[in-house]
Amino acid sequence: MKPTFDIVTIVGAGLLGGSLGLALKANGQAGVVRGVGRRQETLETAKAQGAIDEAHLDLRVAVKDADLIVVCTPVLQTIAQLEEMTGEISPNAVVTDVASTKAAVCSAVRAAWPKPYRFIGSHPMAGSEKFGPEHARADLYDGKVVVVTPTESDDPGARKTIYHLWESLGADVVEMDARVHDGLVARTSHVPHIVAACLSQLAAAAGDDASPVAGSGFRDMTRVAEGRPELWRDICLTNVDGISEALRDLENQLSVFRTWLEDRADEDVEVFFQAGRDARAQVLHE
Amino acid sequence: MKPTFDIVTIVGAGLLGGSLGLALKANGQAGVVRGVGRRQETLETAKAQGAIDEAHLDLRVAVKDADLIVVCTPVLQTIAQLEEMTGEISPNAVVTDVASTKAAVCSAVRAAWPKPYRFIGSHPMAGSEKFGPEHARADLYDGKVVVVTPTESDDPGARKTIYHLWESLGADVVEMDARVHDGLVARTSHVPHIVAACLSQLAAAAGDDASPVAGSGFRDMTRVAEGRPELWRDICLTNVDGISEALRDLENQLSVFRTWLEDRADEDVEVFFQAGRDARAQVLHE
Repeated sequence: MKPTFDIVTIVGAGLLGGSLGLALKANGQAGVVRGVGRRQETLETAKAQGAIDEAHLDLRVAVKDADLIVVCTPVLQTIAQLEEMTGEISPNAVVTDVASTKAAVCSAVRAAWPKPYRFIGSHPMAGSEKFGPEHARADLYDGKVVVVTPTESDDPGARKTIYHLWESLGADVVEMDARVHDGLVARTSHVPHIVAACLSQLAAAAGDDASPVAGSGFRDMTRVAEGRPELWRDICLTNVDGISEALRDLENQLSVFRTWLEDRADEDVEVFFQAGRDARAQVLHE
Repeated sequence: MKPTFDIVTIVGAGLLGGSLGLALKANGQAGVVRGVGRRQETLETAKAQGAIDEAHLDLRVAVKDADLIVVCTPVLQTIAQLEEMTGEISPNAVVTDVASTKAAVCSAVRAAWPKPYRFIGSHPMAGSEKFGPEHARADLYDGKVVVVTPTESDDPGARKTIYHLWESLGADVVEMDARVHDGLVARTSHVPHIVAACLSQLAAAAGDDASPVAGSGFRDMTRVAEGRPELWRDICLTNVDGISEALRDLENQLSVFRTWLEDRADEDVEVFFQAGRDARAQVLHE
């Protein structure tokens, strides 16, 4: 069977990029998989794992003649790379990314690319505090949600290709406006990450050693703080409005709760915990 | 072999109390286990599971002649029950509890009990968002830390009995001053619980449905919000100072971070995430 894509270029062969390469090779959709990176070492690891066939340090060379290009780098790099490749890619190439914020990426493309866009933004809900090609898995996207953020100016064929790409890996594709997406992930992912970093520092700053009383709850709630600092810096800096609004809401909530507590307002405190429990069930559809 | 305790009375036969009954019966330390509760139904479930031998609705009757009494109820109930049992217990009885805050419990005992105290406060780091005797397990305490909060006025024999009790169940006993304990758990457990309830409400209050973007990070960070509201109300109301101080610190941290973000202070943002990662490793000794 002929592969869907003769040449696939994956920019950034880490957890997400490497897993994509493994999956596309496993299901026979990719002829050749080119991996692009800054460090030869990472590319060699990805190659040794079978996630990519070729290792490239030069983005412009690696995207030439590619049928599918997927950018899997921290979001500020993603934006720079999408701008850099504009004049180099084949007119039939279809391009997507996997960055955690979408409005900044999509407006960079709208500013630099010709219409109709053959770029459709994607955000697979498959991140992890783990990173690097050594953690890549062919089934990373299986059963996960991939949010795509199409616009009216997209090429319909390119859009179809991207939807099919994710669905062929077992993912559920959900369409969302890029700004709506960013507002929601600020609340479900970005602010929780910021809070995990705060809680870790709060425990470390206690006058005494907190380790005997840091149980499974603390471990679960701070696990995401293990993520890469430069990745989270980029995510935050490309979602300032969404995060800032959600942080203000959180600061207010905490301050209101603290006042109830200091006033020994037992009913308000109990209602607050019940509301938290109900809200979680609502969001997780449980 | 003669059991260590002829009669053990467990007040509150839920997850923690039920697991204690199962463990003491499994390792042959308990002759008869009496369970005390408000609801016959819960007691019958605990009895059917083999966690208790007798079901009691009357605390004063159930503590009579008991060698070991362990109070496993929400902390405000624990305090009331420790006060209520004072005149009823045998002079040789040894008493402990499992409440998540210790200063309020210990000062209630100091106010109401004769010296030397045959009560030593305990806090097993074995809580869960699950509750009820149906989740009880004989190995719940195995490999867990149990913080004990002895005072200079304790009966040395009683103290030894309580340490041995937890160690015999496979737990690591860690001594701590009750106020130090409360300050630390405010940071590693209580404030994280409050934050989990806030994050759940923050996601539910988004204008659009956040469920497609509520991934494993969100699920992990809000899991503890599944806990019982009345339990967490009691915990918060008996640790107002510790929680209030930690909440103020958290509110300040969030507000400082938000300012960095709004100022696009990329280095500060990255350093903050790195500090969170380092702090987590420090607290968890990783």
